[in-house]
Amino acid sequence: MTRDQIRLAADWWQDVVPSTLARDAIAGLVIAALLVPQGMAYAMLAGLPPEMGLYASLLPPALYAVFGSSRYLAVGPVAVISLMVATATATLGQRHGIDPMVAAPALAFMSGLILLIMGLLRLGFLTHFLSRPVLLGFMTAAAILIGLSQLPHALGLSVDARAPLGQIQEVFGQLGAVSMLTAGLTVGTILLILLIGGPLARRLRQLWPHAGSIVGRMGALFAVTFGIGLAMFTGLSDHLSQIGEIPRGLPRPEWPALEIVWILELSGMAFLISLVGLMESVSIGRGLAARDNEDVQPNRELLGIGLSNLGAGLSGAYPVTGGLSRTVVAKDAGAVTPLAGLFAALAVSLVLLFATPLLAELPRAVLAGIILLAIVQLLDVHAVQETWRYNRGDAAVIGITFFGVLSLGVEVGLIVGIMVSIGLLLWRISQPHVAMVGRVPGSEHFRNRERHAVETLTGVCFIRVDESLQFPNSRFLRDTVLETIRDNSDIQSIVLVCSAINDIDSTALATLEELDLSLKARGMVMHLSEVKGPVLDQLLKVDFPSKLSPGRIFFTNQDAFSALQENHSRCRSKKEIKS
Amino acid sequence: MTRDQIRLAADWWQDVVPSTLARDAIAGLVIAALLVPQGMAYAMLAGLPPEMGLYASLLPPALYAVFGSSRYLAVGPVAVISLMVATATATLGQRHGIDPMVAAPALAFMSGLILLIMGLLRLGFLTHFLSRPVLLGFMTAAAILIGLSQLPHALGLSVDARAPLGQIQEVFGQLGAVSMLTAGLTVGTILLILLIGGPLARRLRQLWPHAGSIVGRMGALFAVTFGIGLAMFTGLSDHLSQIGEIPRGLPRPEWPALEIVWILELSGMAFLISLVGLMESVSIGRGLAARDNEDVQPNRELLGIGLSNLGAGLSGAYPVTGGLSRTVVAKDAGAVTPLAGLFAALAVSLVLLFATPLLAELPRAVLAGIILLAIVQLLDVHAVQETWRYNRGDAAVIGITFFGVLSLGVEVGLIVGIMVSIGLLLWRISQPHVAMVGRVPGSEHFRNRERHAVETLTGVCFIRVDESLQFPNSRFLRDTVLETIRDNSDIQSIVLVCSAINDIDSTALATLEELDLSLKARGMVMHLSEVKGPVLDQLLKVDFPSKLSPGRIFFTNQDAFSALQENHSRCRSKKEIKS
Repeated sequence: MTRDQIRLAADWWQDVVPSTLARDAIAGLVIAALLVPQGMAYAMLAGLPPEMGLYASLLPPALYAVFGSSRYLAVGPVAVISLMVATATATLGQRHGIDPMVAAPALAFMSGLILLIMGLLRLGFLTHFLSRPVLLGFMTAAAILIGLSQLPHALGLSVDARAPLGQIQEVFGQLGAVSMLTAGLTVGTILLILLIGGPLARRLRQLWPHAGSIVGRMGALFAVTFGIGLAMFTGLSDHLSQIGEIPRGLPRPEWPALEIVWILELSGMAFLISLVGLMESVSIGRGLAARDNEDVQPNRELLGIGLSNLGAGLSGAYPVTGGLSRTVVAKDAGAVTPLAGLFAALAVSLVLLFATPLLAELPRAVLAGIILLAIVQLLDVHAVQETWRYNRGDAAVIGITFFGVLSLGVEVGLIVGIMVSIGLLLWRISQPHVAMVGRVPGSEHFRNRERHAVETLTGVCFIRVDESLQFPNSRFLRDTVLETIRDNSDIQSIVLVCSAINDIDSTALATLEELDLSLKARGMVMHLSEVKGPVLDQLLKVDFPSKLSPGRIFFTNQDAFSALQENHSRCRSKKEIKS
Repeated sequence: MTRDQIRLAADWWQDVVPSTLARDAIAGLVIAALLVPQGMAYAMLAGLPPEMGLYASLLPPALYAVFGSSRYLAVGPVAVISLMVATATATLGQRHGIDPMVAAPALAFMSGLILLIMGLLRLGFLTHFLSRPVLLGFMTAAAILIGLSQLPHALGLSVDARAPLGQIQEVFGQLGAVSMLTAGLTVGTILLILLIGGPLARRLRQLWPHAGSIVGRMGALFAVTFGIGLAMFTGLSDHLSQIGEIPRGLPRPEWPALEIVWILELSGMAFLISLVGLMESVSIGRGLAARDNEDVQPNRELLGIGLSNLGAGLSGAYPVTGGLSRTVVAKDAGAVTPLAGLFAALAVSLVLLFATPLLAELPRAVLAGIILLAIVQLLDVHAVQETWRYNRGDAAVIGITFFGVLSLGVEVGLIVGIMVSIGLLLWRISQPHVAMVGRVPGSEHFRNRERHAVETLTGVCFIRVDESLQFPNSRFLRDTVLETIRDNSDIQSIVLVCSAINDIDSTALATLEELDLSLKARGMVMHLSEVKGPVLDQLLKVDFPSKLSPGRIFFTNQDAFSALQENHSRCRSKKEIKS
């Protein structure tokens, strides 16, 4: 870790004074009010008992507060990761009969280790390979999978099929058995949260601007309170599926069970959970930090999220990362330092110590309603539309990832998406833009002959390649040059304009030498021009200039033009201009 | 297939006249004189009976003559592909008890299909991903593996272990049992071929320049003749391992056995064989064609090599590709048209019809000697050294592929090499070169502030990124810009110089928009300059210029400099020059 990062880590302690302490305490309570219902809901989504969602809201946010790089990021259970955990543990349960309650902490622990190792090896850049189209396709598909997974809870059905399509079929087959009470409670929960977040919040904001916006985001807390009240004080609890007993007290620290047999099977998913989790928290943190002239640092974030997950694994919880809604609430509630996260953890532990009997009464339909509302934030239709307009290739990656995740599952679908996006990138690199350039009359500028009226020298061809020369495209260059000279039999000199070439790897170097020999065999000379400093330094190492001889390396195109003008004195101007 | 390619395919027929027919007939005989010993030797290397190597020298070269794109490429069995076949069929034999004689034609058939499909889908560019360092590492390791595999035949031992290290151990364990006669014959074969290729050829060239160079390459034929003579006319045949009976006659056309169970396991290797085979024949063809102003075309080559392998699969042979030594001989022997390949196939069929009893007498040690000499051409120490000097990353890829193939086997090692080379490429792309530029005084040129004395505007920062903006590096740019402005608090405008940006993908576009918002939140303005035509066209599709406003898109850096000079009038010149 660099000195710079250590300075950042301890930074916020200096800001703590009594007044900020009070503000952070209030913000902490507000975060906890969201963490408790979300924690239970997402644990249900992950196929785990509700207390594991609460455990995930204890140690992880506390560890992040101390080691993370964003001041406001509220770490804990989130929807997408919960879905991934559900998928991973279900597969493992089928194959090895491992209880999800055993597998989930192991997954968190592995994910934490992976993140820490990535941090040590400076592999934070790996997240860059989760491109935006892949994330968009993945999030959209995840939203659908999450929605489907909640239908049984939302409608009061008992559906067992795990495959999304099978589940739809089963749900439709059982439509007659829908519990109207359960469905009504789900819809009621959704309406209540929307009401509090919309009209009520607007009205409140007019009275107390600050409190209004906080209360508006507390819909889930009100829904949970209402649901518990409904179950406790009416006779409806017999007709509703409730959460049931939650063990009172804090989780005991414990090594997660790790057996070689199934650890290897989990490792792929642990890696994907790490990547997706890191991406989410970095992008949330960045969105917030943009305004404050501070920034989250991926390698620092690896430490924060990594230790949070390690903590989750050691305290019987499941994988965590930064959650958008809670983070926004934390900021709105006036959090000043990461102490807010510590206060939130404290509040959740009080709930675990004293309020579990109350929570046990909560109908599952309320949690299903909370989840169904939460998935809306995973859908970004506008971004998908923009991508479609901007770049069809990237739009195709969205589609492939989307259908891949729906049809092949979360893990394989995501991997397919990543592979396809890397494949598309490599394909783009392998087909670089190549232009024949000439001199703009009266200047020293060289532009595309197809787009501009430029001067050229007879017998001399200036070719500009708009890409670094690397193994995927080295032969493309060679083929292009050879085709060009085949079409123009009067060419005697080729000038390779290297202004856009930032690297020439050893494959491309060999191809360049081969091309030079081919040209020499045909009595032609190849020159280079505008070779960048670092590229030239490398070419000198293998004595390329002397191999190129009599071909020369010109400092600028203008130099090449002047020098070659002497041998190819006829200079003609091309008049026609194309768009 | 395009019209252009069809024209090329029929091209050479026009050149056939009686005199070329005679030259091609002679060249065909010379090729066959090399094909027969090489075919049997490589079949032995592939773990197959010798007649399969001869079958691979019949239909495949004939099909390539008609459909291939190089005039001289002599298609047939080659060393590296034989090693790959040996590996694939050995694994399959262990797992499913499939006879290599059954699996090898299936492998050829699959490889042929894969090449044809690649041709139909225009996937010839896939070979570009077999970068030079990967090939160098692979070929070097293959040479060692081939050498080791021949030790038992060369020394007259019976060693069974397949793993290279195990084999070395066994060979050393049996050193006492080495047959001096066999070892002597191997060494004798090598010496004979070297003698004929060196001193004898030199002497002959002085007498008959043309014939001398051909005879010099016929060492293998003389060695085989000598070996057969030794076995037939001395009593030594009892002490030597001989090839044994070869079925007389031509192979019967037959569908290869293909069973779903093991086809899937072979498919990975079939794909790699296709890639490596295609690479070999394309590079050999190119090396020869360079002088003649004609060229092999990868997509056309897919058809030629694809049909050759399909033919190999249908005639009980095994995978083939172009062989370097035979191709050189064909050219030296005066081949004019691909008819030479047809004549060679004819000659091999005469051998199969009439000479098999003779060939049966051949001692295996002679073939081992031929193979041991052939692997020398796989070793390119000079290229490895040059790569080490030129680029350490590429040198590391050679090393990883080399040790990967030796320790993990041909298939996994090669895949690891390809993955690592792609990973290295992605890593390079993810860390683009970024320079702060200024105007060279008295010109309109903008160069790196660190390397040149340039003019800058106070409060304005010109940043040039030397790479396309794509998902692996989009965040790198964002981080660099934010770091720059954090260090220079007086900056009010950022000009992103886009002269080296050939593509902005949707991930990078989103990052660019996010960066723009971050800068606006800090009261700064981002401009672009020298955006290339196609990139600008794309940006217009999503109305980026209006999102950027008040930031502008300048046609040239000079335009940006002039326009911003009005607001940031103080212009200072930076004097110090660094290298």
